[in-house]
Amino acid sequence: MDEKYMEKALELAAMGIGKVNPNPLVGAVIVKNGQIIGEGYHECYGEAHAERNAVKNAVEPVEGSTIYVTLEPCAHYGKTPPCVDLIIEKKFKRVVIGMLDPNELVSGKSIEKLKEHGIEVEVGVKEEECKKLNEIFIKYITSKIPFVVLKSAISLDGKIATYSGESKWITSKESREDAQNLRNRLSSIMVGVNTVIADDPFLTCRVNNEKRLIRIVLDTNLRIPLDSKLVKNNDKLTIVATTLSSSEEKKQSLRDLGVKVIEVSKKNDRVNLKELVKSLGQEGVDSILIEGGGTLNFSALEEDIVDKAIFYIAPKILGGENSKSCIAGMGFSKLDDAVNLKNLSYRKIGEDLVVEGYIRHS
Amino acid sequence: MDEKYMEKALELAAMGIGKVNPNPLVGAVIVKNGQIIGEGYHECYGEAHAERNAVKNAVEPVEGSTIYVTLEPCAHYGKTPPCVDLIIEKKFKRVVIGMLDPNELVSGKSIEKLKEHGIEVEVGVKEEECKKLNEIFIKYITSKIPFVVLKSAISLDGKIATYSGESKWITSKESREDAQNLRNRLSSIMVGVNTVIADDPFLTCRVNNEKRLIRIVLDTNLRIPLDSKLVKNNDKLTIVATTLSSSEEKKQSLRDLGVKVIEVSKKNDRVNLKELVKSLGQEGVDSILIEGGGTLNFSALEEDIVDKAIFYIAPKILGGENSKSCIAGMGFSKLDDAVNLKNLSYRKIGEDLVVEGYIRHS
Repeated sequence: MDEKYMEKALELAAMGIGKVNPNPLVGAVIVKNGQIIGEGYHECYGEAHAERNAVKNAVEPVEGSTIYVTLEPCAHYGKTPPCVDLIIEKKFKRVVIGMLDPNELVSGKSIEKLKEHGIEVEVGVKEEECKKLNEIFIKYITSKIPFVVLKSAISLDGKIATYSGESKWITSKESREDAQNLRNRLSSIMVGVNTVIADDPFLTCRVNNEKRLIRIVLDTNLRIPLDSKLVKNNDKLTIVATTLSSSEEKKQSLRDLGVKVIEVSKKNDRVNLKELVKSLGQEGVDSILIEGGGTLNFSALEEDIVDKAIFYIAPKILGGENSKSCIAGMGFSKLDDAVNLKNLSYRKIGEDLVVEGYIRHS
Repeated sequence: MDEKYMEKALELAAMGIGKVNPNPLVGAVIVKNGQIIGEGYHECYGEAHAERNAVKNAVEPVEGSTIYVTLEPCAHYGKTPPCVDLIIEKKFKRVVIGMLDPNELVSGKSIEKLKEHGIEVEVGVKEEECKKLNEIFIKYITSKIPFVVLKSAISLDGKIATYSGESKWITSKESREDAQNLRNRLSSIMVGVNTVIADDPFLTCRVNNEKRLIRIVLDTNLRIPLDSKLVKNNDKLTIVATTLSSSEEKKQSLRDLGVKVIEVSKKNDRVNLKELVKSLGQEGVDSILIEGGGTLNFSALEEDIVDKAIFYIAPKILGGENSKSCIAGMGFSKLDDAVNLKNLSYRKIGEDLVVEGYIRHS
């Protein structure tokens, strides 16, 4: 039964997707005499935590009941008072926790406190699912480096465009809609300046109009047009990442238009990605979705900034020595140097296949 | 229950893999009073059919029993007498058939005859599975053109070698062993002459020592070395496919060494593949496994000779504009011209993913 209620708590937690970053997604379920009497989740960054919402929503007094929560309740004063005190105050009998707080400084502290107050505590129910749901939070809270997802829509033979440059669309409508969920899940999207020059995209999140998706443009030599949509309609969400040597005047023009300009060193004549993600992390960016072409994709993998790769694979074959490869650049010379993925999962979306895996960092 | 027994018959049928081409794979199960009393399958080309073996192996008199057979029993005198007569003679009560004979000239004939003799007949139990098991037979018997499978072992980004040429091994041992089953399933294997020059392979079937796998080398200008293993140890199994304009002297040398030389016209300066498969069909080759490089793979798809594609996909990324693509050549210029696959299926082998699909012929 514990697993069933934790699953419910996970479902609730997921309702916060797109609204809580860089906070964790948390869900809570209160059960009394075998009945769910309260449900809650962390709904919005800066607002009440899941436990508090569940208590608030409870239809009966919660005293003596069990609370299921996907993440260890907080023990500290942040933007809201500590949930652990609320649990003690409300005289819960038992607390079932999906996963410990990933922050080593506080991990387990709440559990000690609950036990000291005679409350039964169980930890690790559906732990793997809880960790997967909060993979962004776990990385960011422990490293201050954003969790980076590389997404590519490809043919079965790994191509993103024919040799003549045709690329719209390789994957199905269903896959493209599914990919929009990634824009909701992550805080920011990263593209190369060539994409901006060629397509002049909006880079918005179609599944969540309110999502303030940060748009990061890699632009070594500041070639971004000042009249591009990402500059003109930046809504304080556009970041241009460039190098120390690019035009000061252009930097100023961009800043004057409300664009944030981040300057990092060069590596292989391009923006130093490792330095950039560190800098973005300092700015509060907890996650990045790379929607790049083959060159950016390869650089990101070579610089080892990617945590997870997602390929939408269409059941078609483009062929061609000179068609566009999803991962291009120089490539790895030796098989031993190739990027390996672990914990591969796959699912079908219509006729397409989605393969997800985590990068084995070298 | 019918489905259960037909599944058993399908299992039996599959035991003939590698031994019956160009005959179909057929299995038969005899059931009396809810008990299996006889099992049989077509074990070897030219020998007894499944029904006859099942009757022979029956541990009780078969009169009044039901026989399950994956393919409509034959009504004609071939290398063995008609099975339909055996069924009538042995007084079976009921015949359950997976699929009709795909040969339109005789399809349904046996069923009529059985019914005339008062035997109950049911057709189409596990029909899809029966058809899949005999996809080679179905194509070959109806068209005299071999069933062609393109197999490639690739990285997630569609590469078969790094830019430095390293290719051993991209996929896992388990995948490579699984791929050996294809060599057992199909009658012949096709490679380009560059593979022979570079690797001097044996091209044998490791899972079945007795398998007489036909080796077809595409060799437009007859560059195959006379001391290559496929020539020296040809065992009358090597076919070199070349063009009318290549050296007569070399052709004669090959023939003197026991190699079969097939001459076809040129198309795009290469062996005309469409003409070649037709010619191979006339020679009795019912199926071809293409284990080519990117160039051959593309030509085969462009010439529309491929029926099925199988990709063994390793969870690694090689990257590189100049690394070797699994489907190379010129490529298709327009997305509308790309090769589409249907009835996609996928399975995991260890860490690798196997994706199979059938070509949608244009």
